[in-house]
Amino acid sequence: MGNFRRVPIGIIGASGYGGVQLVRLISDHPEVELSYLGGESSAGKSFSDIYPHLADVCNLQIETLDPDIIAQHAEIVFLSLPNGLACHLAPQLLDKGCKVIDLSADYRFRDLSIYSSWYGKERQDCKTAATAVYGLPELYRYQITEAQLIGCPGCYPTASLLALSPLLKQGLIVPGTAIIDAKSGTSGGGRQGKINILLAEADNSLGAYCVANHRHTPEIEQICSELAGHEIMVQFVPHLVPMVRGILSTVYASLRDPGLVRDDLITIFRAFYRNSPWVKVCNPGTYPQTKWACGSNLCYIGIEADPRTGRIVVMSAIDNLIKGQAGQALQCMNLMMGWDETLGLPKLGFYP
Amino acid sequence: MGNFRRVPIGIIGASGYGGVQLVRLISDHPEVELSYLGGESSAGKSFSDIYPHLADVCNLQIETLDPDIIAQHAEIVFLSLPNGLACHLAPQLLDKGCKVIDLSADYRFRDLSIYSSWYGKERQDCKTAATAVYGLPELYRYQITEAQLIGCPGCYPTASLLALSPLLKQGLIVPGTAIIDAKSGTSGGGRQGKINILLAEADNSLGAYCVANHRHTPEIEQICSELAGHEIMVQFVPHLVPMVRGILSTVYASLRDPGLVRDDLITIFRAFYRNSPWVKVCNPGTYPQTKWACGSNLCYIGIEADPRTGRIVVMSAIDNLIKGQAGQALQCMNLMMGWDETLGLPKLGFYP
Amino acid sequence: MGNFRRVPIGIIGASGYGGVQLVRLISDHPEVELSYLGGESSAGKSFSDIYPHLADVCNLQIETLDPDIIAQHAEIVFLSLPNGLACHLAPQLLDKGCKVIDLSADYRFRDLSIYSSWYGKERQDCKTAATAVYGLPELYRYQITEAQLIGCPGCYPTASLLALSPLLKQGLIVPGTAIIDAKSGTSGGGRQGKINILLAEADNSLGAYCVANHRHTPEIEQICSELAGHEIMVQFVPHLVPMVRGILSTVYASLRDPGLVRDDLITIFRAFYRNSPWVKVCNPGTYPQTKWACGSNLCYIGIEADPRTGRIVVMSAIDNLIKGQAGQALQCMNLMMGWDETLGLPKLGFYP
Amino acid sequence: MGNFRRVPIGIIGASGYGGVQLVRLISDHPEVELSYLGGESSAGKSFSDIYPHLADVCNLQIETLDPDIIAQHAEIVFLSLPNGLACHLAPQLLDKGCKVIDLSADYRFRDLSIYSSWYGKERQDCKTAATAVYGLPELYRYQITEAQLIGCPGCYPTASLLALSPLLKQGLIVPGTAIIDAKSGTSGGGRQGKINILLAEADNSLGAYCVANHRHTPEIEQICSELAGHEIMVQFVPHLVPMVRGILSTVYASLRDPGLVRDDLITIFRAFYRNSPWVKVCNPGTYPQTKWACGSNLCYIGIEADPRTGRIVVMSAIDNLIKGQAGQALQCMNLMMGWDETLGLPKLGFYP
Repeated sequence: MGNFRRVPIGIIGASGYGGVQLVRLISDHPEVELSYLGGESSAGKSFSDIYPHLADVCNLQIETLDPDIIAQHAEIVFLSLPNGLACHLAPQLLDKGCKVIDLSADYRFRDLSIYSSWYGKERQDCKTAATAVYGLPELYRYQITEAQLIGCPGCYPTASLLALSPLLKQGLIVPGTAIIDAKSGTSGGGRQGKINILLAEADNSLGAYCVANHRHTPEIEQICSELAGHEIMVQFVPHLVPMVRGILSTVYASLRDPGLVRDDLITIFRAFYRNSPWVKVCNPGTYPQTKWACGSNLCYIGIEADPRTGRIVVMSAIDNLIKGQAGQALQCMNLMMGWDETLGLPKLGFYP
Repeated sequence: MGNFRRVPIGIIGASGYGGVQLVRLISDHPEVELSYLGGESSAGKSFSDIYPHLADVCNLQIETLDPDIIAQHAEIVFLSLPNGLACHLAPQLLDKGCKVIDLSADYRFRDLSIYSSWYGKERQDCKTAATAVYGLPELYRYQITEAQLIGCPGCYPTASLLALSPLLKQGLIVPGTAIIDAKSGTSGGGRQGKINILLAEADNSLGAYCVANHRHTPEIEQICSELAGHEIMVQFVPHLVPMVRGILSTVYASLRDPGLVRDDLITIFRAFYRNSPWVKVCNPGTYPQTKWACGSNLCYIGIEADPRTGRIVVMSAIDNLIKGQAGQALQCMNLMMGWDETLGLPKLGFYP
Repeated sequence: MGNFRRVPIGIIGASGYGGVQLVRLISDHPEVELSYLGGESSAGKSFSDIYPHLADVCNLQIETLDPDIIAQHAEIVFLSLPNGLACHLAPQLLDKGCKVIDLSADYRFRDLSIYSSWYGKERQDCKTAATAVYGLPELYRYQITEAQLIGCPGCYPTASLLALSPLLKQGLIVPGTAIIDAKSGTSGGGRQGKINILLAEADNSLGAYCVANHRHTPEIEQICSELAGHEIMVQFVPHLVPMVRGILSTVYASLRDPGLVRDDLITIFRAFYRNSPWVKVCNPGTYPQTKWACGSNLCYIGIEADPRTGRIVVMSAIDNLIKGQAGQALQCMNLMMGWDETLGLPKLGFYP
Repeated sequence: MGNFRRVPIGIIGASGYGGVQLVRLISDHPEVELSYLGGESSAGKSFSDIYPHLADVCNLQIETLDPDIIAQHAEIVFLSLPNGLACHLAPQLLDKGCKVIDLSADYRFRDLSIYSSWYGKERQDCKTAATAVYGLPELYRYQITEAQLIGCPGCYPTASLLALSPLLKQGLIVPGTAIIDAKSGTSGGGRQGKINILLAEADNSLGAYCVANHRHTPEIEQICSELAGHEIMVQFVPHLVPMVRGILSTVYASLRDPGLVRDDLITIFRAFYRNSPWVKVCNPGTYPQTKWACGSNLCYIGIEADPRTGRIVVMSAIDNLIKGQAGQALQCMNLMMGWDETLGLPKLGFYP
């Protein structure tokens, strides 16, 4: 390969599901190498203590969090910590010249008062936050290219916004009619010993949670409003589904022009995502299965129009841990580094 | 028990999931006994060839379909056949004095032209159909008591109508805003060797199907319209969930009076179902899990109001094969026979 | 029902899966009523805080553990606590006249030094322990009838011993050749937030654990040795299977007389279990599925002989939380009280 | 990439799970390209009719089977047909100069009379069959390099033989004591609409099948005997597990020298597989989970010795559709073509 230097990468919060996806994805990426793992509860352990089958991929030790040492080892730092921690670490890492890609909610909000009211934490890093770019490349590709700090979207917002954006950007739906019925596998709950995501509890069952008050609501509304050019309110209800990975968002909205038929809408979506290699708009009559997306960075979108009711139904399927989390973070990294958006990312899972 | 006579029961279509639930439920019912099994593809087999573990419960042979012989053996006949067959059999059985409880779509529609356009079959039995009662006891308890012929609701309509009825009956929602996002376990697809409900295909995946054109739509709309007193159109989208049993219907609608709060709505639902022992309205903040209902004839209903959007969200959970099918059929039988509505039906499954 | 008094029951350790099965089973039992719930970590909570859908079945508060108060409220006490706690509580409850049925390992061992070496706890209650009867009714029916203290078997030993007993009792197999490959659903791990039984980790995966050193090994060997009349060693390897409930034990052993054919062996098993209503020996060529047993107190046993290798293969399937735990405890209670062994216990689950 | 020519590949039997894995794997392989799809029941369809989400990967039409046309389009042909068909097609394809890699049972047996007695089909292609090499590279690497025709192992034999080979080759176990308790996900049953592998039937259940008479038994015994240098008989019992992919074989055998401890055995296994990049022998005390292997061509092997019983327990985990089927076929192709054994094959799945 010649005298080629891989860019050194640090992952902070390596033991969770976001961390293990990042480790796995980086191991396949041709331009970077993993050089540092940090963590809080897992500090002092070896990565392979936690994931024994990955011993050959990564035998790094998980270090305690010291910004100086992180910056010595890594040019790009992924923060995969619980909400409310990245905002303390990111300013220091940026100061030391690192590019920072945060997977938590800390840098997703333009208006920090919204963050504070939904996440219950005051923020001191307003200047830093003002430089953050929302890491949804299909909408903010150019801004990501220029950014030093990325606030990666939540898993539900990723699926939901990819389904809604063409409609809002082009003013195709009646404001305020958008309803998002979202369904997620239980890995979205993280690698934590919580009773409700035990197999014994969650398997062969299904239920809604955080009805009308999930924290991803203001995040979705912020971007929807920006796209529409005015305040948009959405109805968002998440459900826990007995499966490991995957999100399906079923989005309902009333069309402004009920004369629009399915094929028109598919054409509009395909045009909107013309330059987005990770979005696949299905053929008429085909609706996405979450399994199609699992193990890849793809988002599959299916579209139906109901002439009886004048509504559009958009279904979007992603792997919540890849396009909904770590894969999208690497997609952002690719753009920040001037690389091809698809570089090193999984194009396809295995079926079935 | 004295010189007590159990009422003899016939099941036609015994080999499918509806049939095996009926066999199982009847084995626990104190007033009836199974006396006849009939079938088409399974005729000639013993029931225990198909379900070996049930040999002690039922060792009847499955007979070919002869109305004379059925009527000799059974006073009450459950028809659990594919759509379009009951309408040939029911008139003959009624003539011979049997009470008939049909689990197919054949006797669910007051207007047979709707049936014909959605199910692709012309009907000659208009007179018979006109005597049929829609077998949802929570809405048509009195009529069921008087009926000789019941058209039992589909599984999705059962869950959806129990969620919508109090709202429509009392005019609480804006007509035309009702959206039903329904999710079902794969047993709803029946005991047929179809690729899409193989474990390998359906497990760890999720998708919508029959978007905006599922046959349960006109059935739901018929009853909704009757409750509202005018034509109601609903948006109905079903999804296949990787679990065996259970349906969750998440119903969205705009409140006419956005001042109604959650507790008011819960009070209204509880009043509506005051005399319905099989419906449980959850406490504020509690949302039903399908697992709660599995193995019982219960429907759990959870209610949330969203003051931001002025919408109500109602979630209803049932076991699709019991309250959504065979249990409800027995509930109808209890009413037709003048027995207590809960007699012999399972009040509770096992958890987890 | 006349002036009939139900026997008051106490459950200590009500919040776990053993406890919730007991609550559910007792609610269906015609001769007893639940009068007391006790717990440690859950003390102070209402039972319906933990299991909201069971509010109508049980609205008792969970009390702290005070033997005096327990004995005032309950004549029969089920202890469903972590290992090592019952041995402190049982002696006091017996002194106060309660019958005690313990679901932990504390009273399963005739030789307490074996208990101490496998469970790491010294014991002071030797006299009490000497009065305990091993609660496997199919083997110790008569002794259970006379007992005040029952040590209920573990879930794996129940399935494994029911498969092995006829062979050992009649000396049909070569000692030392018995291998038990056992597979369990994850509810066997209890209602605890452990990472390895999260749905995200355990679903779509399978592995062995505690290979050659699981604590159920000495328990199985104790009873096997007693049946054989000499020391028996077994190879026991448990596996975690991605399902909620159910255990399958596949037992391999070399026949002393390789001339014994499958039908002979089935005849021998059926004779052995002639008076055991909860054991069903399958017809030739039929092998049990765990789903058959789930939701019931049944054990299904399938038998195959391999003339090529001279081995017998016995497969036994139970619901780990019913016949493997709480149902068996009630079966013991029935015997202790002189009631029919099957009284009030579930004879059949729902299929599929 | 220069003026580089990819080797054209044909897949016969493209619509099944073997076929879709081959299509997917070939899309990632740097030296080959898919040029032909053939099938029987699926002939005439486009591949993307069957797998819509793979339309971008493969838009070939599935052709009827004509050896001349196949040989015009492909240099290497994978046969992924039901048993008993490859033996008609392979001789013609070999004659026309193709390399043939068969995934069915047709070319796995050195002694065709064994094939005929277990598969119920007489064979005319003895000469061709005599040239076939058993496609387990870890045992027959050199012979595969030289072969024109490969009979790829079954999924169970792959897992079982990788667990047993070091023991047999080195005479470490007592002949005749080997017992294989194997567990498979339901995708092993193929993409066929069979009732027993419906999600509704197979989920949350577990059972053995083909006890003591599964067709993989003689295949395992053939290779075991060859390794041992004398006839070996094994006890093989497969189980169906409620998961999509993955096989775990738990292998029990009595050690000739009971003094051998676990660490010795791990050392012996590691030496045996020193040059086998796709086999990973776990550290002491670590047992493989099938999920570790899923989505990769790896086989993970865990080893335990039980000093009490003198037995070894070996657990091997593979992805039944990759290392157990299509991945292994490509591994053979790599060897036949003189490429690196790991070329283009997936080294790691995603977790969890």
